[in-house]
Order: sequence, then C-alpha cells, then structure tokens
Amino acid sequence: MQTPTDVQAAPRAARRLDHRPGGSRELVELEDARRWLEARTPPLAAEWIPAAEAVGRVLAAPPSPPRLASPGNALAAMDGYAIRSHDTDGAAEGSPIRLPLQRAPGPLAPRAAALVAAGAQLPAGADAVLPFHGAELAADELTITLAIPEQAGVLRHDRELKAFEAIAGTARPLRPLDVALLSALGAGPLEAIRRPRVRLVVAGPKSAAGVPDALDSDGPMLRALLLRDGGLIGNRITGAEDRAALAAALGAVDQADVILVAGRSGTGPDDDAPRALADVGELAIHGIGLRPGGTAGLGMVGGTPVVLLPGEPLACIAAYELVAGPLVRRLGGRDPALPHRTVTAEVARPIGSTRDLVEWCNVALRDGKVEPCAEAEDLSLAGAIRADGFVIVPAGCAAHANGARVTVHLFD
Amino acid sequence: MQTPTDVQAAPRAARRLDHRPGGSRELVELEDARRWLEARTPPLAAEWIPAAEAVGRVLAAPPSPPRLASPGNALAAMDGYAIRSHDTDGAAEGSPIRLPLQRAPGPLAPRAAALVAAGAQLPAGADAVLPFHGAELAADELTITLAIPEQAGVLRHDRELKAFEAIAGTARPLRPLDVALLSALGAGPLEAIRRPRVRLVVAGPKSAAGVPDALDSDGPMLRALLLRDGGLIGNRITGAEDRAALAAALGAVDQADVILVAGRSGTGPDDDAPRALADVGELAIHGIGLRPGGTAGLGMVGGTPVVLLPGEPLACIAAYELVAGPLVRRLGGRDPALPHRTVTAEVARPIGSTRDLVEWCNVALRDGKVEPCAEAEDLSLAGAIRADGFVIVPAGCAAHANGARVTVHLFD
Repeated sequence: MQTPTDVQAAPRAARRLDHRPGGSRELVELEDARRWLEARTPPLAAEWIPAAEAVGRVLAAPPSPPRLASPGNALAAMDGYAIRSHDTDGAAEGSPIRLPLQRAPGPLAPRAAALVAAGAQLPAGADAVLPFHGAELAADELTITLAIPEQAGVLRHDRELKAFEAIAGTARPLRPLDVALLSALGAGPLEAIRRPRVRLVVAGPKSAAGVPDALDSDGPMLRALLLRDGGLIGNRITGAEDRAALAAALGAVDQADVILVAGRSGTGPDDDAPRALADVGELAIHGIGLRPGGTAGLGMVGGTPVVLLPGEPLACIAAYELVAGPLVRRLGGRDPALPHRTVTAEVARPIGSTRDLVEWCNVALRDGKVEPCAEAEDLSLAGAIRADGFVIVPAGCAAHANGARVTVHLFD
Repeated sequence: MQTPTDVQAAPRAARRLDHRPGGSRELVELEDARRWLEARTPPLAAEWIPAAEAVGRVLAAPPSPPRLASPGNALAAMDGYAIRSHDTDGAAEGSPIRLPLQRAPGPLAPRAAALVAAGAQLPAGADAVLPFHGAELAADELTITLAIPEQAGVLRHDRELKAFEAIAGTARPLRPLDVALLSALGAGPLEAIRRPRVRLVVAGPKSAAGVPDALDSDGPMLRALLLRDGGLIGNRITGAEDRAALAAALGAVDQADVILVAGRSGTGPDDDAPRALADVGELAIHGIGLRPGGTAGLGMVGGTPVVLLPGEPLACIAAYELVAGPLVRRLGGRDPALPHRTVTAEVARPIGSTRDLVEWCNVALRDGKVEPCAEAEDLSLAGAIRADGFVIVPAGCAAHANGARVTVHLFD
C-alpha cells in the first residue's frame, strides 16, 4: 500500500514531471531519450546457429563460402541425368541416342548417364544435366530425344555466387528464400546476431478502490510486438503489485539484455515503477516529449537498460514503438525504424495539435487522402482499433497541414 | 531402389504428365486444382483460447459482450481519482477544492475521491476520473485544481462498443491492438478457428550417383512460410528415401489437417511421391498448369488433403504460395490470397512467356517501373534472391505488355 511518505521520497526527476498543457518544459525530447539509450547499448554479440533456423535472423559475419566456389564442384540445378553434353549431340524426336544408365556411384563412365538430384554434386566427367522429359528410361537404358548444351542444368557459379554474396552482404533479417539458397549451397552453421533477451515485467492491479480482477491488456500486446521485432521473452513477471515487488522484478538476476516494465510509469501516488527503478538502479529519464506515452522512463539496472512504459494501452504502444522497439530491433541487428507497412498520402485535414511534443496521431485513409480519426483527440485504444494507421508529427511541428504528403504507418 | 517396373506401375495421371514445351495439354489448370482442394476441405472447427494468446488468430464467433455493455459498469479510461464531477465544480489553480482520499473499497463516500486504474470499474457513486496532474495528494487529502466534467476519463460505451463490434465482426487475424482492447474490456476465452495442423514430409536424398549429404533447402523455407500462414507444424518427417518410406510418411496416423510432401514430385524414375500417394490414398491431380511448380500434385489420404510440392526450391515456393498456402490460410480462417506486401507498377519490359500456364515471374522495380529480372528465364532460386518480388501472369495471357499496370508481390 502506497503512503504519502513514499510519494515524497520519489526521485526528483519524477517529481518535476508535469503533464499539464504547457508543462512539457521538463520533458526530455524523444530524440535525446533515444540517443541516451543508444549510447549505453552496444550491439549484441554473435552466436552460431544452424542455417535451417536462420529465417528472421541477421548475419553477424558472412557465411563460409559455398561449396560452389571451388571450381571442381559442379552441382545439378535440377533433377535429371548427369551426362557429357557431347554424347547428346544430334539427339531429337526422330533420331534418338541411347545411353546406359549408370547405377554405381563414382565418376561417370564413358558414354553413360547417371541420376542426379537438384543440388547434388555432378559425378566427375559430367558437364550437363538432361531433364527427365528429354529421355525415356527402360531396362536401365535411356532413349534420349533432346540435345543438351554444355553446362545446361548445372548451377552457374556466377549466378549462385552473386545471390550468395547478396545474402552475405545484407543487413536485413534473412528471408525464407535466403535460407533456402544458403541451405542449397550447403551452408554450415551461420554467425548471427543474438536475439535480444527481454525481461517483461507487467505491473499488477493498482491498490485502488473498486478494481476488479487484473486486466492485463499490455502483456499480450507487448509479447506480440516483441516477437515481431525479433525479441526473445526470457523472463516474464506479471502482477508486480507495489514498489517492493517492482523493485524485486527489476533487480532479478537473469541474462536479460533489456528490461521492459509496463504500467505504473506515471506521476500518481501509486505509480511505483520509477521509484522502484531508482531503488535498485538508475532512473535517468522520466517523462519524454511524446504524446501519448509521455510518462515513459529510461534507466539502467546493473548494465541492463530499462524502459518504463505507460500502462494505458495506446500510450504503451506509442512508447513501445518509438522508444523500446527501436532498442530491441537495433540490439538484434535490425533496422531500428518503425517496421510497419507504410503508404504516403496527402493530408485532407490537419494532423497534430502541439508544437513541443512528438505526436502519435491515429488516422484514417479516405479516397486516397489521410485525415485524423474522429477519435484522434482522446487518443484511446478504441480510436486506434478503427483507424487505418498512425502518423508521427515531429516536435517543432504543430500539425501536418492540408496538402502535405505524409507517411502513414499501417496497423496490420 | 527404383526399377522400370515401378515406373510402368505409376498411376495414369502421372504417366500422362508432360512438361515439354507445348505439352501442357494434360495439365490441370491452377484454378481447377484449387477448386478441387476447396471442395474437399471445409473450414476447421473452433476452439476456445485465452484472449491473451489470440494475436494472429481468427475469431470463429463474436466474443461475449464486454462488461461495458451493462450500463452500471463504468470503467476508468485512465489512471486517476474516481470522483463525483460536481464535487470539483469551480476548482482552479487559485481556488483549490479539497477532498479526502478514500482508501477503503466499496462505494464512494459523499465528497470523497478514490484511486482508480485505467480499465478498472469505477466505485459506485463516481461519475468521472480526475487525472493525477489535477490534484496534489498530502496526508490522504487531495488539493484539486481542475474542474472535471461529468463522464471525463470514463470509458465511453459508444466508442468502446464500436471498437469491440469492429473486432467482433472482423474476418482477419487479430492484431496486438485488438487483443489489447479485448483484454481491457475483460474478454474471457475466445472462440477462434483452429490453427491448421500440418504434417511436413521432406523427401530424402535421391538414389542418384554422386549425391553428397542431404541438402534440405525446402524444409526450413516451408516451416517459415507455414508459420507465416498460421500453420502448426505437428509432425515433421524428413529424409523419406524411397517409395516405401514416403508411403509410410503419408500413411502415418496423426491429427494432421494437411499433409505437405516436398520433393520427388516430378516425372523422373525416382520421383516416388506421386506413386507413394497412390499406394496409400488417392493421387487425384498430378501436373498443374503453373510455371515453375508444374509437377505439384494433389490427393487425399483418408480424409486428409495432400499437396505434393516440387523439390527444386523456386518451384517449391511457387507451388506452396499458389496451391498449398491458400489451403492452409483458408483452413485457419484467413484470406487465401497471397499475403505479401504489394505495389502496383507499370510494366517497362514484357513479363511472361507462355499463354497456357499461370506463370510466376521474378521481377525488379527500377525507377518505379517493373521489369522481369535478367535471370527471369531460368526461374532459379538465385534469380529470386536478387529480385524485388514476383508477378503472376494468369493463364490465357502470354505476357503483361509494356505500359500495363500489374501487382508486384514483394519478397520481404
């Protein structure tokens, strides 16, 4: 239970915080808050992972050069029969050429053909792959009706290597296609940037009269957003009910790279998260020039960065997407920018209302133009549900005016 | 080991298959193949899931009406003090009003205020929430400097209900925002469409000469695509090496809603997947008018649909995205259409090369226009890696001509 003594013992930063209109002088600018975090959070180290598990991961170092790179290793680009191309010279529908099928492994015997699978090494002596439709097989003899040029059906080193190098040099998370190519080229384990391990602390129900059972709306939402951003939720602590429980959750010893606390970040008498952080570590920033989400805070426990997120769901989303999300994405080697699909559209009605704060505005797209939602003023989750997306209005800009072209981040 | 007798015993559909240029007469049209699947795969049943785990799930029935709907249940929209609004009439910076803080639960005493958390039920008697910045708390007494209108800070039923109804009526997978709102409204368990359970069978290395260790490029890729589409990979069987092993994998008894087999779908002598399917179930369609991916097949084992996918990675992707993916997405209640981000762009160089087949063409975006990749002709995975996306050219259309506007599905 909160007492007035606790309130007075709160750190100065928290006491100076003032969210009244015009009272934003004490807030830290969003860009400064992000820079503060960046200066304290070097990129994570690499780890070895199997190529097969690399979808969504960011490479820390180029993979070992593929087997392709050694000139003797020609690989089949398709299923078929490994042959010497000159053995098929002149083959056609009316003038078939017959070759025996070699079942034994090892080098290709003179004037023979051997089954080969896409991705497999050609037997020594073969220089092309005859596709199945170019021959009929009967009693281990092929009747070939298609002349095959040299290197047909063989993985072309230049093309495969260009694709390999494009993947090896990329800074984006690997896609299913990339992993398929690395696997096809026989990539061994890969050095990938570690996934950031996140300790997610969700504050419990407040010590207020009339509170029904806990409604944890932030936990499921944050889990989904953290997964999207490549985070690994290692230690999840829900229902931390008071300053002592929050301090214990913040001070827990684990391998976390980031600690997120959802709820109790505000300036009310039972907003214990900033005080709990100051108890066990450092509360460096409390109050960020962001609307909604302005009660977010930053600090450290030991060497681990902590982001305090507001409990109100839309404020929680805004502070996650603009403060915590960039940290998680950057730690894991991803682009820290917002990951939403975007469209660029012309403003039909002014978007934004304050000059001093970075504003998150829920917007609707109508007839290809963008306008604030009817509910924009109250900045609620309910308003966001029915919006198409959001627009960020930077500090120093009161509103995006009619006719301006803005980037809409889509909610989907 | 494959013998010529096995080849001759293959089902008629497979023997008629012909992939030579101009030989597509026997192929089943992609649309007919999809209709065949649709007719045999009713949507999955619903299951109860906790609201907190519902991100990405599709509702099978509207959730129970929220607690909000009963008029007596006013909920706080924000953290603050529950009050009677008329008790703050006239409060201002120069003329504060004092109210005692009620710590006890239960109805709000006359001329009192009680702490309340966002989402919590207001105590009986309260009709508004005073934000923390509108009062100073000392010795359990509030000094209030802000007049609060009736219903301020209270969840407005119309708005919340509109958002709730928008979610309840939606056919798309729930987003983090949706789950946060349902949780905030106290939603209990939800009835969601079951996630389709997929048995993924990856054919092992072929019995060809010179094959090195197995290169499973399709397995990791298909796992990632299945996860994207909401599939649950329940039983994964890799390295099925021959007809008997594939038949055993196809005939396995489990709870699968879909069976995918990757590899060995072609017309070569060791392409055992179609024969194995005919051995234990029905091979209904083999050979689809799709390029690449034309060796895909469809059938049933017991009541479970089976999709045979080519082993060559790009053909495997194409057949997955256009045949298996729509099935998985539809079974789970999702939109069967391709889920990629798209852009619409003007064609700068003709895209496509055949009239009879649905073609998957890797394309590049240059200066806002779309053109086939240099590698488009060989339709390899390496070509796809360096492409920006793909364009589908429908059957009946040889090519998208210069100046046409086409939809590009982006690889990312």
